[in-house]
Amino acid sequence: MKPYNKMTKEELQAELEEVRRLHSKYCEMGLKLNMSRGKPSGDQLDLAMGILNAVDGNTVMEMEGGLDARNYGGLEGLDETKQLIASMSGGDPANVLVYGNSSLNMMFDTVSRAYVKGICGHTPWSEVKGAKFLCPVPGYDRHFAVTEYFGLDMVSVPMTEDGPDMDMVEDLVNNDPLVKGIWCVPKFSNPQGYVYSNETVHRFAHLRPAAEDFRIFWDNAYCVHYLYEEILIPNLLAEAADAGHPDMVFEFISTSKVSFAGGGIAGMLTSRTNIDDALKTMSVQTIGHDKINQMRHIIYFEGGKKIPEHMAAHAAILRPKFEAVQFALERDLEGLGIGTWTKPRGGYFITFETLPGCAKRTVELAKEAGMIMTAAGAPYPYGKDPKDTTIRIAPSYPKLSEIVKASDVFTVCVKLAALEKLLAE
Amino acid sequence: MKPYNKMTKEELQAELEEVRRLHSKYCEMGLKLNMSRGKPSGDQLDLAMGILNAVDGNTVMEMEGGLDARNYGGLEGLDETKQLIASMSGGDPANVLVYGNSSLNMMFDTVSRAYVKGICGHTPWSEVKGAKFLCPVPGYDRHFAVTEYFGLDMVSVPMTEDGPDMDMVEDLVNNDPLVKGIWCVPKFSNPQGYVYSNETVHRFAHLRPAAEDFRIFWDNAYCVHYLYEEILIPNLLAEAADAGHPDMVFEFISTSKVSFAGGGIAGMLTSRTNIDDALKTMSVQTIGHDKINQMRHIIYFEGGKKIPEHMAAHAAILRPKFEAVQFALERDLEGLGIGTWTKPRGGYFITFETLPGCAKRTVELAKEAGMIMTAAGAPYPYGKDPKDTTIRIAPSYPKLSEIVKASDVFTVCVKLAALEKLLAE
Repeated sequence: MKPYNKMTKEELQAELEEVRRLHSKYCEMGLKLNMSRGKPSGDQLDLAMGILNAVDGNTVMEMEGGLDARNYGGLEGLDETKQLIASMSGGDPANVLVYGNSSLNMMFDTVSRAYVKGICGHTPWSEVKGAKFLCPVPGYDRHFAVTEYFGLDMVSVPMTEDGPDMDMVEDLVNNDPLVKGIWCVPKFSNPQGYVYSNETVHRFAHLRPAAEDFRIFWDNAYCVHYLYEEILIPNLLAEAADAGHPDMVFEFISTSKVSFAGGGIAGMLTSRTNIDDALKTMSVQTIGHDKINQMRHIIYFEGGKKIPEHMAAHAAILRPKFEAVQFALERDLEGLGIGTWTKPRGGYFITFETLPGCAKRTVELAKEAGMIMTAAGAPYPYGKDPKDTTIRIAPSYPKLSEIVKASDVFTVCVKLAALEKLLAE
Repeated sequence: MKPYNKMTKEELQAELEEVRRLHSKYCEMGLKLNMSRGKPSGDQLDLAMGILNAVDGNTVMEMEGGLDARNYGGLEGLDETKQLIASMSGGDPANVLVYGNSSLNMMFDTVSRAYVKGICGHTPWSEVKGAKFLCPVPGYDRHFAVTEYFGLDMVSVPMTEDGPDMDMVEDLVNNDPLVKGIWCVPKFSNPQGYVYSNETVHRFAHLRPAAEDFRIFWDNAYCVHYLYEEILIPNLLAEAADAGHPDMVFEFISTSKVSFAGGGIAGMLTSRTNIDDALKTMSVQTIGHDKINQMRHIIYFEGGKKIPEHMAAHAAILRPKFEAVQFALERDLEGLGIGTWTKPRGGYFITFETLPGCAKRTVELAKEAGMIMTAAGAPYPYGKDPKDTTIRIAPSYPKLSEIVKASDVFTVCVKLAALEKLLAE
C-alpha cells in the first residue's frame, strides 16, 4: 500500500471511509479487550503454583543462627533470599537488602527516606528547594507518580535505543547539584523494551555527580524476563564502585513477574553504607518482612538456580502474544508512514509512536471499540506527552486470541486517527 | 519477711550479703536468658503450621469480581480479609483497609502520610511547628520511635489501671491545636496489661479536638490475646462516629501474634474518608499487598470464626509462663515494699515498678547474671523514665523452665538493687 503522505486527498478520503467502516464494525461487536497494564496472565501465574507447596506444615523453619522464619526479626532478609535476589542480576549477595512483596513499595520508601531524613546524613530532599529527578521518556508512569508525590521537579531526558541521552544526563548530573536522582529501567525499558548499551551503563558508572546524594534508581524489573535469547548488561553497581562511586546506585529487583504479582519478594542491591542508612529507618518502620514467603521462593527456585528455566516457560507464553502484535503491525501499517514501533526481545511492553498529535485520539478510538489501552501521555512526567505520539502496548495479560483481535482493532484505530489528522491539515 | 523499710541498717546489711551471694551464684552459672521482647515462642508458632497448607497448588485463586489473588490489584485487600480483620475487633468490614505483614509498618506509614501530605487535606505535620503526640506512659517503645523519627514532640500522659489520665488527655486534646495524635494500646496495654475502662473509651469517643486532624492511634494489638476469660471493650470507632467524630480513630489490628510474627496480615479500621485519603498515597506506593497470604488466613481461620479457639491454644501455652513469673514475684517480693507489679489477664507483658532510681540497676544486675531484659527506660519517650522505676517483663518467648529460672534471677536482682539503694541513703 502507498504511504499515506503520497496519497491524494481523494485517495485519503476513500481510505478514511473504508477504515471508518471497519472501526464502526468493531464498535458494534461489543468487544471487551484490555492491553493497558503489564500484568502476567493466568497461564503465567499457573507456572508457579508449585511454590505454594514449597513450604508446608513439615518444613523446618529454624534457620542457621537460630532465626525462626516464622517469628519476628531478620530485618535485612534471610541470607538465602539475598543470594536468590543477587543471582537474578548477577550481583553480590552482600549488597542485597530484602524488602516485602513490592519493589515499587521499596522505591517509594527509598525516596520517602531521602525526602524525610536525607540520604546518608545529607539534607532531606524536603528541604532542598527545586530538587530534581531525571526521567528518561517515555518511561514508567508509576516511577513518575512517586517523584511527583514528593514534589520533586521532573526533568525529561529523551530515550534512544541505547538508553537515555547520556550527553544530557552527564551534563545535568555532573553540573547541577539539585539533580538528586534518575529513574532507569536498563533492561527491556518500560515502555520501549530497549536494552541499555554497554557504553550507556559505562557512562552511568562514570558519572561525577554534583550532588553527593545523587542516586541512580536502577529498576531492573525485567532482569530475567527474556522473550528470546539471554541478554546481559554490565553490572552497574560493581562498575560504579570501581569508578569510585560505590554509593551511587540503588538497583531494584523483584519476583513479581517471576512467581506471583503481589505474592513475590523484592529487594535492592546497593552499598553497605546505603543499606545501613536504609536500616536506620526500616528498624523504626517494621520488625521485618515476610520470611516465610522468602523461604517459599528459596526452596522452590532452589536458591535461584531454577529461575532461568522458569522464565523460559514464561517466555513460551508471552512470545506468541508479542509476535501476534508485531505481525498485525507489520501487516497493516508497514510502509504507511503513520507510525513506528519497537521490537523488544524481553520485558512486558511494545511502544508505538504515532504521527504527532495522534496518540490520544488513537487510544480514544480504541476505547470506542471496546479496547482499553494505557492512557496516552502516561509514559511522560505529569502525564504530558509533548508531541502526543507515544502509546504503550501491553500484550501480556489478555489471551492470545484476544491479542490477535486487539491488534486488529489497534491498527484500524491508528489508521483512522492518522487519516483524520491528514485530512484536517 | 519484714518490709525492707522496717529493717535496721544491720539487718539490711545481712540481707545484702545473702542476696549478693545468690546473685554471684547466678552470675557463675553462665545463664543465657532473655525476657526482652514480646515474641511468640516456637510452641505458639507451631499452632499455626496448618496455615501453610491452607493454600496450595489446587486452590482456586480467582475471587468474586474476577480478581486473581495471585495477580496485581486489590489495593484495599480482599473482602474476606476485611471480614476477618473486622471480626477480631468487633468492627465493620466496610471500615477495614488491609495492609501487608506488619501493623507497625502501617502505623509508621500512616504517620508518614500525615507528615508528608497531611491528613484529609490538612497541613502536613512536617510544616506544623511544634506538632505534638500524646504518649501514655509507660507505653510501647516502637510507638515512641515512630513519632520521634518524624520529629513530633512527645508529651507523656500517665497511665492508670483504667487507661490514660483522661482529665489530662481531654485538657490537651480539646485545647491545644498542636496536639495531633495519641498512641493507645487499649486492651492489655503494652507494657502494663491494663484494659481501658468503658468510661475511658467513652471519654475518648467524646473528645472535642482543637485540631481537626487529630487522630487516636488505637493499636488494638492484643484484641483477642486473652490469658483467661474474654474481656470486651466498647468499639471506639462506632462510639466516636455516634459522637460526631467519625474520622477521629485509626484502629490497628494484626495477626502477627495469631498466626506468624512476620508472616501474618495487618489492617486498619477507620472511616471511609480516612481510607480514601490513605489510598491516595498507597496507590502511588504499591500495586497491592500479598493477597495469597490473605487467602491463607481466610481459609485457615474460616473467615475469623476459628480465631477464638486458636487463641485459646495460645493462652494455654502463655498462661503457665505468666503464672510462673507471678508466683516468683509473690513468693520473693510480696510485703518487702520494694516493688509492685501488674497482673494482666491478656497481652504479652507484665510491668514491674521498682523503688525510685532502681530500674536501670536491676536490669544491669540481671544482665550480669546472663539475663537480657528490655532496657529500663524503653517504655518512655526518648527512653527516659523520669523516676527510673519501670521494667517490662516479657514472658512469652523463653521456655517455661527458663521463665522459672529467669524469675528467680529477676527477684534477686530487684532485691539487690533495692538494698544497694537503701544502704546508700
